[in-house]
Amino acid sequence: MSRLQPPRGTRDFLPEEMSRRQYIIDAVRKVFSSFGFEQLDTPAFESWELLSKKGGGGSEVKDEIYYFKDKSDRELGLRFDLTVPLSRVVANNPQMKLPFKRFQIGKVWRYDRPQAGRMREFMQMDVDTAGTEKMTADAECIAVAFESLRKLGFKDFEIRLNNRKVLNGLIEFVGIPSNQSKATFRVLDKLEKVSREETVKELGRIGVDESAVSKLMKMIEVKGKPSEIIEKTKKQMGDIAVAAEGLGELEKIAALSKSYGFDRNLVVDFSLVRGLEYYTGPIFEISVKAGKKVGSVSGGGRYDNLIGLYGGKETPATGISLGIERIYEIMKTEGMFKGAGDSCSIFVVSVNDSVRKNALEIARKLRQGGVSAETDVMGRDMRKQLEYANKKGACCTVIVGPKEVKEKKYTLRNMKTGKEAKLSIDSIVKKVNCSLSQK
Amino acid sequence: MSRLQPPRGTRDFLPEEMSRRQYIIDAVRKVFSSFGFEQLDTPAFESWELLSKKGGGGSEVKDEIYYFKDKSDRELGLRFDLTVPLSRVVANNPQMKLPFKRFQIGKVWRYDRPQAGRMREFMQMDVDTAGTEKMTADAECIAVAFESLRKLGFKDFEIRLNNRKVLNGLIEFVGIPSNQSKATFRVLDKLEKVSREETVKELGRIGVDESAVSKLMKMIEVKGKPSEIIEKTKKQMGDIAVAAEGLGELEKIAALSKSYGFDRNLVVDFSLVRGLEYYTGPIFEISVKAGKKVGSVSGGGRYDNLIGLYGGKETPATGISLGIERIYEIMKTEGMFKGAGDSCSIFVVSVNDSVRKNALEIARKLRQGGVSAETDVMGRDMRKQLEYANKKGACCTVIVGPKEVKEKKYTLRNMKTGKEAKLSIDSIVKKVNCSLSQK
Repeated sequence: MSRLQPPRGTRDFLPEEMSRRQYIIDAVRKVFSSFGFEQLDTPAFESWELLSKKGGGGSEVKDEIYYFKDKSDRELGLRFDLTVPLSRVVANNPQMKLPFKRFQIGKVWRYDRPQAGRMREFMQMDVDTAGTEKMTADAECIAVAFESLRKLGFKDFEIRLNNRKVLNGLIEFVGIPSNQSKATFRVLDKLEKVSREETVKELGRIGVDESAVSKLMKMIEVKGKPSEIIEKTKKQMGDIAVAAEGLGELEKIAALSKSYGFDRNLVVDFSLVRGLEYYTGPIFEISVKAGKKVGSVSGGGRYDNLIGLYGGKETPATGISLGIERIYEIMKTEGMFKGAGDSCSIFVVSVNDSVRKNALEIARKLRQGGVSAETDVMGRDMRKQLEYANKKGACCTVIVGPKEVKEKKYTLRNMKTGKEAKLSIDSIVKKVNCSLSQK
Repeated sequence: MSRLQPPRGTRDFLPEEMSRRQYIIDAVRKVFSSFGFEQLDTPAFESWELLSKKGGGGSEVKDEIYYFKDKSDRELGLRFDLTVPLSRVVANNPQMKLPFKRFQIGKVWRYDRPQAGRMREFMQMDVDTAGTEKMTADAECIAVAFESLRKLGFKDFEIRLNNRKVLNGLIEFVGIPSNQSKATFRVLDKLEKVSREETVKELGRIGVDESAVSKLMKMIEVKGKPSEIIEKTKKQMGDIAVAAEGLGELEKIAALSKSYGFDRNLVVDFSLVRGLEYYTGPIFEISVKAGKKVGSVSGGGRYDNLIGLYGGKETPATGISLGIERIYEIMKTEGMFKGAGDSCSIFVVSVNDSVRKNALEIARKLRQGGVSAETDVMGRDMRKQLEYANKKGACCTVIVGPKEVKEKKYTLRNMKTGKEAKLSIDSIVKKVNCSLSQK
């Protein structure tokens, strides 16, 4: 039989990589909690009825997800994001106290064409606040993502901020009829991937008037500090009600950014569209610069109509998502895992077969002292045990021989420095715990 | 629109429950690691070709899993356990250093009839060691599960131990022809759920000779301390090679149990069969007694042929699985979550709108000091903020008013005791961190 691979678009995470992913997850989870967000978990699959509602849905969605039927012909699909399940949970639980500040970390599945850095199975880490229309909630979501990235060691950020209301106002301002707005946004959303020229051509192709296109292209080039841009834009299109409203929201977020500590990283960028159709207010995206790499690792926005769409009471909501695969790739390339998630584990070596049981007991006592301790399960000789300990990255070994057992003192060897000391089990525990706490 | 529920056989975990599940997962993960097991992650779905191989497979398996095709007509299925993916990973990675001591914590899906405490989506926490036929690996797996349960606060255990080889020998010993052995095991596996009489009848129905049945029923009633049972059984059926081999394995595990610390909980029980057909040696199951509840929460065994079946080099392996849903239910019923996973979080209250920004900044500084701190995002008045803090279980509040801002000292109120103190931010951080570390 030939070897069986993971299904197309999916992959395994072997321990070395997985321990680093777990390090990211744990760090982010801690930051999420520290802001008062609480964890939710939902099923991997949802009813097709639910999944098809988002963004107009229908057969278009079906092409992009894993759709299947169960044995009672119920139509199901693997979840493609964590926002839809959250919206369902809020809609289904009217007794829930608001604001519902929840986080969820889990895998989602999309039937995209697999390509470098883009799998069909991937993990998202989301925070969302349901139940308030206040911009504080939006600013807080940005702050949570920002602090999560800082916790992971990122230092150089750009937080791009825009607003769907401003975009709608902008469409009106440059004279594009409202029935062309959706198509226009769809073209603009691809701006980062295609050239400016292509975008202009494409806008013409969908029927946007030439002068409107040129005005539009000028407007979406507007990017800079909120203080520079918001006032100026207000003067330009402040008499368009929806634009004024959106600009007011941006102003509030900008004002809050100082208290949350991300003011120096915040730019208003009118070219930011974000694909999803359900956004209704502020939208935001965080890029990190690390070495030569710049990449968007987080994004989100406000969606005030989604929960109502799922049969719940109309409930305003906003949220942000962090993508672990991109974060992992950048951290790996930039050597940001140095020491991250490292812990000291001891390998207890038996000098010969007569002391194997003693080695087991010593390892057990070390674990009782809070130290990770492993022993041989292969019946290997001392040399091979040391080789294995070395390969596995044990920080120390404890050598157990008949003499050591008699004296109740064992040789602790630091695998990095080669330093040795003969110590009791209690002293070994103390020494290892102490060197860990100094890290 | 009516409310949309989670699909049949699945459910949501709202924060209160989820934080406790996460507490279990974190505790168990820590114990797994402390024994030198390393984390693996694999896709939620696997190829049908892989899934169908286990236990004879074919259409029988198809009825019990979520089977579907992707858009290129690839046959897939949601994984129904974590052993199959592990075996695939070992088979696919011949470069891997052995022993491969891995753990995996993740959801699995089975298309069973949903019933109380048994969902179609549930979570398993597995440790397995691939690459050694030594009984030390089996004993270690039992020890890891045992220590995980102890860590969670369980005190009263029964570890039932049997061996497939002994069972095969037993079949021969009582005179059941080998072509009836599989069917016989299948009947015996249900013994705990049906009465002794039913079992006897059922064995007759599948054609087992009456005198063999009565001998068999007597043999499988054998249960007790390894020291009492193994020697005695050796005398009875020690001349059946496979039985002698199996008994020798049990003897080794019993001898190791003292070093691993689970000797007092270990019983040999010849009625233990464990359904899965791929087991080849020792099989084991751990029940916990907590209050009036006794329940199997963990089980596993040795499967020396599975990895070879998946196209890898023949690789002996053994492992054990912990079921989080049962553990959770017992811990909840028995009040074992007291203080578990509790952490102190502070709610920073603004006395009025003029100090909202100050409250945000204070919360930020508290978080920088390592304390969880939340503020209002609803624009609520002070009374409502306090209500919310109370409902959410904040351990303390920090009251911020104009006077406090001026003095740079804020009222820290313990929400349990009602005690108050006026402190600087630094002092609040110290006080909260200190009271946490004393827990």
